[in-house]
Amino acid sequence: MAEIDTAAREQVATAARASRVAARRLALLSRADKDTALHAMAEALEAAAPTIVAANEEDLARGRDGGMPGGLLDRLALDERRVAAVAAALRDIAGLPDPVGEVVRGSTLANGLQIRQVRVPMGVVGMVYEARPNVTVDAAGLGLKSGNAVILRGGSAAESTNRALVDVMRGALEGQGIPADAVQLLEGGRDAVRALLTARGLVDLIIPRGGAGLIQTVVTESTVPVIETGVGNVHVYVDAAADLDKALAIAVNAKTHRPSVCNAAESLLVHEAVAQDFLPKVLAELSGAGVVLHTDAASGEAAEVAGIAHTEATDEDWDTEYLALEMAVRVVPDLDTALDHIREHGTGHTEAIVTEDRAAARRFTAEVDAAAVMVNASTRFTDGGEFGFGAEIGISTQKLHARGPMALPELTTTKWIVEGDGQVRA
Amino acid sequence: MAEIDTAAREQVATAARASRVAARRLALLSRADKDTALHAMAEALEAAAPTIVAANEEDLARGRDGGMPGGLLDRLALDERRVAAVAAALRDIAGLPDPVGEVVRGSTLANGLQIRQVRVPMGVVGMVYEARPNVTVDAAGLGLKSGNAVILRGGSAAESTNRALVDVMRGALEGQGIPADAVQLLEGGRDAVRALLTARGLVDLIIPRGGAGLIQTVVTESTVPVIETGVGNVHVYVDAAADLDKALAIAVNAKTHRPSVCNAAESLLVHEAVAQDFLPKVLAELSGAGVVLHTDAASGEAAEVAGIAHTEATDEDWDTEYLALEMAVRVVPDLDTALDHIREHGTGHTEAIVTEDRAAARRFTAEVDAAAVMVNASTRFTDGGEFGFGAEIGISTQKLHARGPMALPELTTTKWIVEGDGQVRA
Repeated sequence: MAEIDTAAREQVATAARASRVAARRLALLSRADKDTALHAMAEALEAAAPTIVAANEEDLARGRDGGMPGGLLDRLALDERRVAAVAAALRDIAGLPDPVGEVVRGSTLANGLQIRQVRVPMGVVGMVYEARPNVTVDAAGLGLKSGNAVILRGGSAAESTNRALVDVMRGALEGQGIPADAVQLLEGGRDAVRALLTARGLVDLIIPRGGAGLIQTVVTESTVPVIETGVGNVHVYVDAAADLDKALAIAVNAKTHRPSVCNAAESLLVHEAVAQDFLPKVLAELSGAGVVLHTDAASGEAAEVAGIAHTEATDEDWDTEYLALEMAVRVVPDLDTALDHIREHGTGHTEAIVTEDRAAARRFTAEVDAAAVMVNASTRFTDGGEFGFGAEIGISTQKLHARGPMALPELTTTKWIVEGDGQVRA
Repeated sequence: MAEIDTAAREQVATAARASRVAARRLALLSRADKDTALHAMAEALEAAAPTIVAANEEDLARGRDGGMPGGLLDRLALDERRVAAVAAALRDIAGLPDPVGEVVRGSTLANGLQIRQVRVPMGVVGMVYEARPNVTVDAAGLGLKSGNAVILRGGSAAESTNRALVDVMRGALEGQGIPADAVQLLEGGRDAVRALLTARGLVDLIIPRGGAGLIQTVVTESTVPVIETGVGNVHVYVDAAADLDKALAIAVNAKTHRPSVCNAAESLLVHEAVAQDFLPKVLAELSGAGVVLHTDAASGEAAEVAGIAHTEATDEDWDTEYLALEMAVRVVPDLDTALDHIREHGTGHTEAIVTEDRAAARRFTAEVDAAAVMVNASTRFTDGGEFGFGAEIGISTQKLHARGPMALPELTTTKWIVEGDGQVRA
């Protein structure tokens, strides 16, 4: 790996040190102070909506000139209504309980020492994400509420928008007597990002949010601890004992409800005992919803018979996160083959079984190694909002620290506080 | 960084795949099966004690020939009594509750979905450590109890001993119908270690245990998630409002009770208001216990007056983890200076204040950023055994996943299990 440019390294170190100083203040703020600041940020964003929308226009114009696809332009776009929505998200965060100070466990030891494990902020959290301005505001809000300073690095396509948003939020923080450096935007090129990823000791945690490529880069280059998020090659397995009405509703919902997100299903596995009944229905409904079907031999034959458009699945299809109206379909002879398939191709995000058979459900939930395992429910439910967390900073697909939807508690660490009256070890 | 030798990479990949297969079985074992296997391992070790001691003799002979220092030879040595002690440790682990299957939290959502977060094993855990045979047995036992397959890489100076220990434990596992690959020893040179550290996707977690150099190497080279352990530049701060009898007992215990371990104190900070009273006593007692004193100007003067041997502290002393009978001593004008000193020089392991002033204690526990913060207690209490965990795989000094003493729950991750009856997202 090439050396990181010294100027970039120094720029990031200076920024991170300023974040650390701010983080010390944030760690000691009361919930009331943080909530007041969140409301002030929300109001400031609404008041500055015209400026923010104008900055966003610059990004959009650059995007259009550069041939940015419509879907990405849509995610980048902010009008006054969307500014109001991100401001509302900050107010929602103000309404959530403060994770800092929660006593996780504790006891009094035989020698009289009182020990307790208490949630405290991580310190400085770096966020690396794509050109989605709502993430800029969400991350700043969740960071503040959890007592962390954040260093934000959004996609360069959203650079003017992010600058406007962060300026407004920093101003609002200062107005509340909170250091503006609680929220910083990382400017500069690729070397600045690499300097952030290697600022071990200055930055406590990096959270990447985006496509597989971005996450892979962060994971590989970072020496700061990382929480991997969001790559989901998600399966729905329809068991021999499935209620086929439920199976139909779940498969279609999991695939088509919002195909561009990580908890959308990508592959459908159907037990051969129900294939003849189930496939014509599900393939027709999927196809009718515009889903391109990549079929194995058996499901291809069923599609053929029913006159449903389909293409032959290649080896690659089983590992593809389409994030689009496409689905791979395979008929399996038994639960074991389904489990093997998921073990080989799954990414540990969300996997679902549809079955009325208690033993099959128990085996599936025990043996599938994923952040979320569903029985008779759409995979789309793996979501911080749906789980009742009130917010989500991402969905962790790693095993360390947090797994599945991450909200405020996942942005904290703990500290043991030990109180005695002179105890020493014998 | 140089490329990793292909043969080493393949050797490690093959081993890790075998571990993964074993881990799938381990994840489904009942507590009873695991406890029976732990007892079988303990008995097998005792029965094989002569073989193990003979293998250890080979390592010791090589160590002596190579000029290994006495302290390291002692940590390496195993006689029949010590073999009995490591076997007893396995029986202790059998007595601990099984973390796997614990329901961490759960709820029923408005739509009727029942969600619960359940502890499950990590999968495959790599341990990289020094020439300490007891760690080989502890790690195998804690791994088995938490349902994880372990790949052990002990210091090459203990190679014959580790081979003997692992052979015996693998045999005992097989005798219980548990895959022997639940416990593997990583053989080979430095490239094998580097291949382990970069076996992302095959290995779920790496835990380094040892000196600062070993930990730094693992943290820098690893792409597998790491839990950093055990570097402790630990301070005892004696406040203006300290009970000086408690302070004396705590400072001496923290430094001299077991100076070679990470929770031993390395620096003593004394508020100037009590320096004149306290320093002559504490310096005399420390010096009498054989502690080399590295003093700042004020504490040096006190030593001088009292006729106590001391040397002038250099800038380096404040950052040195002596792990020996040496201590740096500084007089500070106030609590803020003590907090600044700890912030600058601490490693986030354990920090202690001695005070009867409630406000000082509250500020210290709130503002010190460390795994454990003690009030009126020896720093030596940061320990899994002392905290009542019944076992310890290491003391984490990082913020992600685990902080402070790590036992069985810290070797697990969680899985969300979601049960419904056909729910889809609207």
